[in-house]
Amino acid sequence: MKIGMIGLGRMGGNMARRLMAGGHQVVAYDRDADAVAKLTADGAEGVGSLDAVRDKLDTPAIWWVMLPAGEITEGTIAQIAEKAKAGDIIIDGGNSFYKDDIRRAKMLRDKGIEYVDVGTSGGVWGKERGYCMMIGAEPGIMEHLDPIFETLAPGAGTIPRTPGRIAEKVDQRAEKGYIHAGPAGAGHFVKMIHNGIEYGLMQAYAEGFDILKSKNSDKLPEDERFDLNLTDIAEVWRRGSVISSWLLDLTAIALAKDEMLAQFSGHVADSGEGQWTIDAAMEEKVPANVLTASLFARYRSRVEHTFGDQVLSAMRFGFGGHVEIPQ
Amino acid sequence: MKIGMIGLGRMGGNMARRLMAGGHQVVAYDRDADAVAKLTADGAEGVGSLDAVRDKLDTPAIWWVMLPAGEITEGTIAQIAEKAKAGDIIIDGGNSFYKDDIRRAKMLRDKGIEYVDVGTSGGVWGKERGYCMMIGAEPGIMEHLDPIFETLAPGAGTIPRTPGRIAEKVDQRAEKGYIHAGPAGAGHFVKMIHNGIEYGLMQAYAEGFDILKSKNSDKLPEDERFDLNLTDIAEVWRRGSVISSWLLDLTAIALAKDEMLAQFSGHVADSGEGQWTIDAAMEEKVPANVLTASLFARYRSRVEHTFGDQVLSAMRFGFGGHVEIPQ
Amino acid sequence: MKIGMIGLGRMGGNMARRLMAGGHQVVAYDRDADAVAKLTADGAEGVGSLDAVRDKLDTPAIWWVMLPAGEITEGTIAQIAEKAKAGDIIIDGGNSFYKDDIRRAKMLRDKGIEYVDVGTSGGVWGKERGYCMMIGAEPGIMEHLDPIFETLAPGAGTIPRTPGRIAEKVDQRAEKGYIHAGPAGAGHFVKMIHNGIEYGLMQAYAEGFDILKSKNSDKLPEDERFDLNLTDIAEVWRRGSVISSWLLDLTAIALAKDEMLAQFSGHVADSGEGQWTIDAAMEEKVPANVLTASLFARYRSRVEHTFGDQVLSAMRFGFGGHVEIPQ
Amino acid sequence: MKIGMIGLGRMGGNMARRLMAGGHQVVAYDRDADAVAKLTADGAEGVGSLDAVRDKLDTPAIWWVMLPAGEITEGTIAQIAEKAKAGDIIIDGGNSFYKDDIRRAKMLRDKGIEYVDVGTSGGVWGKERGYCMMIGAEPGIMEHLDPIFETLAPGAGTIPRTPGRIAEKVDQRAEKGYIHAGPAGAGHFVKMIHNGIEYGLMQAYAEGFDILKSKNSDKLPEDERFDLNLTDIAEVWRRGSVISSWLLDLTAIALAKDEMLAQFSGHVADSGEGQWTIDAAMEEKVPANVLTASLFARYRSRVEHTFGDQVLSAMRFGFGGHVEIPQ
Repeated sequence: MKIGMIGLGRMGGNMARRLMAGGHQVVAYDRDADAVAKLTADGAEGVGSLDAVRDKLDTPAIWWVMLPAGEITEGTIAQIAEKAKAGDIIIDGGNSFYKDDIRRAKMLRDKGIEYVDVGTSGGVWGKERGYCMMIGAEPGIMEHLDPIFETLAPGAGTIPRTPGRIAEKVDQRAEKGYIHAGPAGAGHFVKMIHNGIEYGLMQAYAEGFDILKSKNSDKLPEDERFDLNLTDIAEVWRRGSVISSWLLDLTAIALAKDEMLAQFSGHVADSGEGQWTIDAAMEEKVPANVLTASLFARYRSRVEHTFGDQVLSAMRFGFGGHVEIPQ
Repeated sequence: MKIGMIGLGRMGGNMARRLMAGGHQVVAYDRDADAVAKLTADGAEGVGSLDAVRDKLDTPAIWWVMLPAGEITEGTIAQIAEKAKAGDIIIDGGNSFYKDDIRRAKMLRDKGIEYVDVGTSGGVWGKERGYCMMIGAEPGIMEHLDPIFETLAPGAGTIPRTPGRIAEKVDQRAEKGYIHAGPAGAGHFVKMIHNGIEYGLMQAYAEGFDILKSKNSDKLPEDERFDLNLTDIAEVWRRGSVISSWLLDLTAIALAKDEMLAQFSGHVADSGEGQWTIDAAMEEKVPANVLTASLFARYRSRVEHTFGDQVLSAMRFGFGGHVEIPQ
Repeated sequence: MKIGMIGLGRMGGNMARRLMAGGHQVVAYDRDADAVAKLTADGAEGVGSLDAVRDKLDTPAIWWVMLPAGEITEGTIAQIAEKAKAGDIIIDGGNSFYKDDIRRAKMLRDKGIEYVDVGTSGGVWGKERGYCMMIGAEPGIMEHLDPIFETLAPGAGTIPRTPGRIAEKVDQRAEKGYIHAGPAGAGHFVKMIHNGIEYGLMQAYAEGFDILKSKNSDKLPEDERFDLNLTDIAEVWRRGSVISSWLLDLTAIALAKDEMLAQFSGHVADSGEGQWTIDAAMEEKVPANVLTASLFARYRSRVEHTFGDQVLSAMRFGFGGHVEIPQ
Repeated sequence: MKIGMIGLGRMGGNMARRLMAGGHQVVAYDRDADAVAKLTADGAEGVGSLDAVRDKLDTPAIWWVMLPAGEITEGTIAQIAEKAKAGDIIIDGGNSFYKDDIRRAKMLRDKGIEYVDVGTSGGVWGKERGYCMMIGAEPGIMEHLDPIFETLAPGAGTIPRTPGRIAEKVDQRAEKGYIHAGPAGAGHFVKMIHNGIEYGLMQAYAEGFDILKSKNSDKLPEDERFDLNLTDIAEVWRRGSVISSWLLDLTAIALAKDEMLAQFSGHVADSGEGQWTIDAAMEEKVPANVLTASLFARYRSRVEHTFGDQVLSAMRFGFGGHVEIPQ
């Protein structure tokens, strides 16, 4: 099929390449002309404007927007909506908030334009491994786009079939690495929860390795310490343990390179999904202590002290005359 | 009555003074001769050794040990145990772990010595306000010591009687500001939970004031900010609100002095009670998310970054190529 | 002054009575004619419609809306806005979301109507004790309404002045029990954080008393149990301890009545403020583990099991063959 | 080699079988004669007493104790210590507390007996997949036992080598699925943290799937719901997503069988490791909010209501007159 790829950064560029490797044609646009040139060299039809994208595409056109969530995506979709023809399909493959998808789909439907939201996991490894995708779309549109998603997805590969899966009863797509999650918004909703879980998993490993490392340290009296090899521990857990995972594989790689992780400052960013996951939990009245604590650990990592800490010290001074000396 | 006070620091010295003001006699000892001299000037019988303490006391002697919890208290009680006569009473007024009390009481009972543990709240304000005390002791010993505790306690004062309290059915002591919590260990157990709760209350205020202060800050776009006066907010909450408390009074004092709390570094210490409270919760399988999070916030306040944060960054680099830049 | 009180429930009715006791005149309206009749009997000018309220009030009129937050308040304010004259003041004394206040104030200002949001704490005790109020308003309007707030507020009373408060530098109102927090929305924002803190304080006590009670229980081997008297513990903590507070007073009252608290089911409701507090924390990137855990404990209290618990059991069965038997 | 296997339950029996399949000889003992008979039928030398175990073993003998942690393991090791000869090796393959290992190793060393602690992960799947093992032992003993561990471990298999691992610098054992973690206690310490992490990972998935499922439910207004297929979501996340893991594979299996997980009651047990992990974190002053919240979620799953919930309701009744009605 022929797809317009808008946004040729780390994600969009590689997805375009994987599409072309799978036999699709890509019309490529980015505000950065260099990015366009690079992708043109790799076989895409590079263009210099959204209008040019539309000219090169068939009708109905498929516009795949792969930009940072927020104003850039919002503005770009608004621009495309003006250039699109009835029946065109606009796909937001970024990390938009799912309520924005619902709003946009409604607004575009009034113009006869289809809207599809694709939550994508796999990061920089996706070009080779394939992208795991969670998709919100009308059923007919979903079927129309299946060839694209099949190409982008990892496919069944070597990952064994889940025992008990009854092929007739389930969406065949899941085993290939993508799903039709529901109508507009459902794709990004599932991706949002995916990222919420991701934060929780990461924090669980982080706390565990912190306890391991501190067991070696002068935080403890000398006769209570061990001399644990974190690199080997991460490695052995990859092999037959209950906590083996891809995130553990990545941790093992990082520790093998430098067990001190000295290149990492410890300031940890968060994107919107963690926060939105907690919002969703609160709307549904679902307790989510682990996902929340994981998000808050990241907030905390980015400040030296909180005002709350100072309030604590002030109270302690108030009732006990304690003066806190930085250690 | 005549009491030997061992340890004349901020707490012990003031308790001795309150006892003397209440008509009791105090034999005072501390390793620091200056502390002994000061208390002697205030009317105590100062001495230079534990042996001298014993000499000055009646039989049975009352030894009140008011030292930092841990090795110092443990060692001092062991020394006193050697000098004490049968029937003597050793009181640990510090913040010992309640299981240590149970062990000591058993060990001392074999020697015919009584052991009493007193958990004390009130901090530096106790000398004037009186000390709130939670006491573990044999019933007969408790009665014997009542005059001492009555003097140290705040007394009923102006705090109104709790509606519904039926005087006949309850321990009269509670309304005077001290209780017989149970056998040895029970006093420090109740005090331990008191401190666990204290951490939780403090952290609740800390987080609330942090959110208030951040609402004024450049963490938010300019049109979403307020210009809240934290000092006035603390003040108004003291007056008729559901969250009025003594800890809020202390916060209001600190904010009135400097709303920025600039003198407080934000490194917050914790004594053993918070940790032991979580241990008790786990032994009883009681979920205690708030008390635990409060303790952990203090641990976190004392380090610049955790290794866990670095593990998170390493994973993020692994799957997304993210390089975390300190902000 | 003359005030129209819209909504004569537990809060509105008592506030009207306190206003009248303070020399103000109240025009009273409620959809429930009985409530109107009762307040008329207590001295108010009861009326049967919003139009009648307007007729009875001076110009500019003061409309105090005291209704449950949400659609009812929203709809009523919209109706009043149609009947109000330029210069009229509409006060929302309920628990509205502060962003709704900002939106309403803007909308009403275009019509020449003033909007004021009043966050109120004190619950059913406010009629006698006075109401602690946090107010969002334009400065001129605030001054105009001062006589009303002074009457409703507790006044300085017996609560001592905070040491270090310099009278000239601070808003005199705070010591009387109300503050001008800022423009529209600021009042409810501060009240929202107040409730967030309230949840945290309550949960800290709740966890502490749970650990105390469980120490008496068969969750522990017999030789590790105590026989703690929770009623006396709550009582003694009221007297000189660091954790004394009004919430503790209420706990002491409840325990004095029935130490088992058998009349309370353990289903704990939450109103919107707890959730909005977490939203605010996340917008500001402030870690708020305690306030969040407190909110989630309430969610959890209202369901028998979570699906999450079942997912855990399913995994345990998967890797260990564990079959969980309800205990 | 020849190994005495003490305890032929789900774990011990299968480990014995894997050892025999790898060419080792097993002397098998269990208090349950049936278990002995079954293993004898599978090729072991079944015996009826610990004395008989010793008789059948060479010198130095290798005793592998595979029993539930706690009194049974403690008592059995004490009995074996009496029957063992100098140079014998006692291996505790269960889930003992690592401080018990340190104590036992010291005690046994005085008798000339070696002690080894083996933390084992892999559950019921270990017989086929191999057991991931973390081992505390003296270096010489470790080398002596290598053939046994190599047989039990999964071996390198199809799991790819971690990029960046420099073979010369690291313990070769890790890539085969077992490590020499350090001296006695280190094996169980690492296994303990493994389980602490496991709790955290599980709870992260549990919360995420709970939020997904609740999005389908009548907890939300009808127009805010989706109709998400949890089975397909678990499946698709196995394929290329950042959160793929073995625990997710198990979740996918369970959901494929019954998306409602109706057979699982939601009462979730915890073994000691989760609690000990928190103890270790507190000893080291490492914040571990996620691991703790995961443990507490399990405590909470096993009770209908907490006393803490009732305390909250009692306070709410106290200040607001709220009567909580179970929903």
